[in-house]
Amino acid sequence: MTGVSEGDEIVTLKLLKQKMHDFAQERDWEQHHSPRNLLLALVGEVGELSEIFQWKGEVAKGLPDWKEEEKVHLGEELSDVLLYLVRLSDICNVDLGQAALRKIRLNAIKYPIPNSNPSPNSNSNSNSNPISKP
Amino acid sequence: MTGVSEGDEIVTLKLLKQKMHDFAQERDWEQHHSPRNLLLALVGEVGELSEIFQWKGEVAKGLPDWKEEEKVHLGEELSDVLLYLVRLSDICNVDLGQAALRKIRLNAIKYPIPNSNPSPNSNSNSNSNPISKP
Amino acid sequence: MTGVSEGDEIVTLKLLKQKMHDFAQERDWEQHHSPRNLLLALVGEVGELSEIFQWKGEVAKGLPDWKEEEKVHLGEELSDVLLYLVRLSDICNVDLGQAALRKIRLNAIKYPIPNSNPSPNSNSNSNSNPISKP
Amino acid sequence: MTGVSEGDEIVTLKLLKQKMHDFAQERDWEQHHSPRNLLLALVGEVGELSEIFQWKGEVAKGLPDWKEEEKVHLGEELSDVLLYLVRLSDICNVDLGQAALRKIRLNAIKYPIPNSNPSPNSNSNSNSNPISKP
Repeated sequence: MTGVSEGDEIVTLKLLKQKMHDFAQERDWEQHHSPRNLLLALVGEVGELSEIFQWKGEVAKGLPDWKEEEKVHLGEELSDVLLYLVRLSDICNVDLGQAALRKIRLNAIKYPIPNSNPSPNSNSNSNSNPISKP
Repeated sequence: MTGVSEGDEIVTLKLLKQKMHDFAQERDWEQHHSPRNLLLALVGEVGELSEIFQWKGEVAKGLPDWKEEEKVHLGEELSDVLLYLVRLSDICNVDLGQAALRKIRLNAIKYPIPNSNPSPNSNSNSNSNPISKP
Repeated sequence: MTGVSEGDEIVTLKLLKQKMHDFAQERDWEQHHSPRNLLLALVGEVGELSEIFQWKGEVAKGLPDWKEEEKVHLGEELSDVLLYLVRLSDICNVDLGQAALRKIRLNAIKYPIPNSNPSPNSNSNSNSNPISKP
Repeated sequence: MTGVSEGDEIVTLKLLKQKMHDFAQERDWEQHHSPRNLLLALVGEVGELSEIFQWKGEVAKGLPDWKEEEKVHLGEELSDVLLYLVRLSDICNVDLGQAALRKIRLNAIKYPIPNSNPSPNSNSNSNSNPISKP
């Protein structure tokens, strides 16, 4: 949907971290990549991502009604958020990939899988679960 | 810095996407994972990430003065942003990894590497470059 | 809807600015109220505001289905965003009230009122107008 | 600092609410002003506000080193956030002005004024207070 076919290349967080590091170093941008500068840049990108969705009302999964260029634009804004997130993590010495796996494990403990044949009651509980994260 | 040693496991965006998909499916949360629900959840996590930095003034790279628990907490909030970003991309049929590689290629064209011995002038240009993204 | 009846008191931006100034001064918080600290605190509050809406799907105007405590909570989060915005403006020497009136005047020039009996075409234009701001 | 002199006009939240209501009605934009559309538009504006500060490192109170056009731009972005916040509150039937006064009263109870001659200890406590809100 982003103008590239899935699986062209295995994309690890470490690969993106290295590419962002090299990109900044080659352009002498490291001096500007302080934690709070990168955090505010991330917030700026989240704003651009939100602008794509702001006047659309509820949006269906898979974006069936979106033009191809809208989907490409969305891919670019999602990427900008990711790239600043990867760079911010690197500058803060956080191993984002390992932290994410750890967080998923913590979430699995916090939100155990409900039993396979739940009562309507436990059903409504599972429905309210998403209020918690993620 | 996040309480896990780097490189324990190769973390691809596809792995995180699959784990988030399974996590939601096992808990019957897919009904709640619409694009705009996930986007607002992402904004909520960016808010929690910002709260970690909000009263600290300028923060040095590598967070030398931070307590270990603060770094672990930071890793968790960075992860929450990443996990919602991965899930939002999946629900929108965007291949986030390929989109990110494509965006880096576009950025490399947009911001060519300055010549190796720049004049003070081109230097100051390269300093102002970061105002553009990423 | 916020547990107070409308119009109890005339609320000017200057009144809120003065109250926020006094509140910070009385608690010796001014040392913490730098522009970027306040901006990140604002982002944190926008995150809390988003969390209220994140799992709700599309929400009807007037929030007809919301519990009273949800509306009160919403009023508190909207207020937190406003109070940090007022404080940030003050610390940046921006007269927020006058700036807002000026911005409305600029918007009125940018988006003139469409003629009273528009063609279907100009109609669809007016529909896409909101993509611009505000 | 925003190109207008302070106090030209008394600006109440009710005045801004009325102006935003009329602006939307005159342009047939009310159909687009659902709570979540306005919330995402607000997030977009917070992103634009953040972009102004993103590469600046720590910024001094009063923005002594900023160019006049930067200050005017800042006033416009602060205003965009305010105007969407006022509009979102109106659409949600929240009296933003009264809610803000109520929140300040709640904060005053939550963070009582420390005694006038605090010990170094209680001082350091008051310093950490701002981690709470607002």
